[in-house]
Amino acid sequence: MAVDAMGGDLGPAETVGGAVTAWREHGVPVVLVGRAGEIHRELARHGAAGRIEVVHAEGVVPMGERGAGAVSVPSGLRAGCELVGKGAASAFVSAGSTGAVVSCAIRGVGRAPGVLRPALAVALPSVTGGATVLIDAGATSDPTPEMIVQFALLGASYAQIVLGVADPSVGLLSIGAEPGKGNRLTRRAGELLPGLPLRFHGNVEGHDVLAGTADVIVTDGFTGNVVLKNVEGSVRAALTLVAEAGVAGPEALREVARRYDPETHGGAALLGLNGTVVVAHGSSTAPTIARACVVARDLAEGGVMTRLMDHLVAEPAR
Amino acid sequence: MAVDAMGGDLGPAETVGGAVTAWREHGVPVVLVGRAGEIHRELARHGAAGRIEVVHAEGVVPMGERGAGAVSVPSGLRAGCELVGKGAASAFVSAGSTGAVVSCAIRGVGRAPGVLRPALAVALPSVTGGATVLIDAGATSDPTPEMIVQFALLGASYAQIVLGVADPSVGLLSIGAEPGKGNRLTRRAGELLPGLPLRFHGNVEGHDVLAGTADVIVTDGFTGNVVLKNVEGSVRAALTLVAEAGVAGPEALREVARRYDPETHGGAALLGLNGTVVVAHGSSTAPTIARACVVARDLAEGGVMTRLMDHLVAEPAR
Repeated sequence: MAVDAMGGDLGPAETVGGAVTAWREHGVPVVLVGRAGEIHRELARHGAAGRIEVVHAEGVVPMGERGAGAVSVPSGLRAGCELVGKGAASAFVSAGSTGAVVSCAIRGVGRAPGVLRPALAVALPSVTGGATVLIDAGATSDPTPEMIVQFALLGASYAQIVLGVADPSVGLLSIGAEPGKGNRLTRRAGELLPGLPLRFHGNVEGHDVLAGTADVIVTDGFTGNVVLKNVEGSVRAALTLVAEAGVAGPEALREVARRYDPETHGGAALLGLNGTVVVAHGSSTAPTIARACVVARDLAEGGVMTRLMDHLVAEPAR
Repeated sequence: MAVDAMGGDLGPAETVGGAVTAWREHGVPVVLVGRAGEIHRELARHGAAGRIEVVHAEGVVPMGERGAGAVSVPSGLRAGCELVGKGAASAFVSAGSTGAVVSCAIRGVGRAPGVLRPALAVALPSVTGGATVLIDAGATSDPTPEMIVQFALLGASYAQIVLGVADPSVGLLSIGAEPGKGNRLTRRAGELLPGLPLRFHGNVEGHDVLAGTADVIVTDGFTGNVVLKNVEGSVRAALTLVAEAGVAGPEALREVARRYDPETHGGAALLGLNGTVVVAHGSSTAPTIARACVVARDLAEGGVMTRLMDHLVAEPAR
């Protein structure tokens, strides 16, 4: 399990502590990637000098680089993905920006056999108190209906493993609840999904994303990414107006805002590659990093690919 | 100007009063469509018996019918669209459900010359106090890049006429601010938009929809409809959590919720047809209906098609 020591707003001060906790308390075998000098200093501070492997990478992805530009930096982020790509690590955890991590992971890790394209899964808290997995939240912009089918299977496994839902329901994001509503891609995907070994809920709509209507909502990576960012922006806008109306204290509103941070529940995970990549929140502290390591280990141990593999054996991907 | 007397939660009691106000105070020539008996009774109540033309239609779209099923009902909604389609009215106002009105309008009104497909424009209030026009909010699910270009021109005209923005900026909804980010449709539209006679802002993202980043945000009708409903759902979710936290009174929260009703600012307008169709809010009272009539008149008087027509003369649609 590789951990990006330099990712996130707080850097090695928190990421190294998180990795040490994952190793010490949860038995996750970790490798730290990033600037060796800074990492060794932090390891010593946590009484773990010489106990955890360190892979040096000098570069640091610039603040504000949130996409494909990150690939050109010889960073811990890139090195971690390459460790997974060549089989030296089974998963990778980073608190870098989601866009930068996804870009590096797609380039550096490589697709798992039979997987057409990777998908990004994000757990969004719902008003009912649970969470809904949105997949694909931005990895594959122009999927085919067959790719949407794979995303649905990956999303259902993610909900089982990360959210502990025994038999997750899967809704197809569209523009009307009735079957047959949607664009060409959605209509075709809606024909394929009922034939899958999962509990298909049918179509869901934009207002269902936070309503707890389904455990998993599957869509293409363009729509999913627009929705993910629209949730953030809309919740922020509503809270801003409440604050301006002077009817609620800032502390209480911060708590609501924090709950709606899309990465609060288990982080974002890039699925379908040769090893799972988990994106922890940018402001992650050590316990959050430790939890992301445990999630990544659980996902990597084969469970997240099980449903998809069973399906591929029954009906090989085109 | 045809007005659907039976549309909306409050029915003729409010729609007829609104039409009378539009005619009496704003000089809008109106025709009321729906159940003649009920309409005449309301006209008498407003001292306008025999002063406003009534077109009888017996059917009423069932509550809960929010889509294409409305077309099969011989309703005032359908009759109003047909009046516009045959040139007997220049525009139509209804407080029916947006989906039902759009379905009837596309069937009954017909496309304006040179227009490839219609688009639904909705003004969403932004946190900055202004509003952003989202177009297409759900009329055309699978547009071509050339259709997106037309939607952008229609949206800019709508922002000028309804929101009074002299030179509206237009953003393209995508998944990264840099040019070239997006799915195939968006990338191609992003190449065409800078060549148009409008102020192109570049790409915007999901979190920009309520942030006041651009006066107009253009997208395909699938993404636009998902976003429109996601805004509603996300704002509602945030307010529910604030209410549950017990930190704000329900009255203040209702005010925020009301402000975020997507149809508050000028209603939704279906553009690009032989006459404009304006969808007023389902719970519209007489003043809201009157305002929708004025908006429909202003849009119908040619302004909303001006930019698109100028463009079509310069570069005929394929």
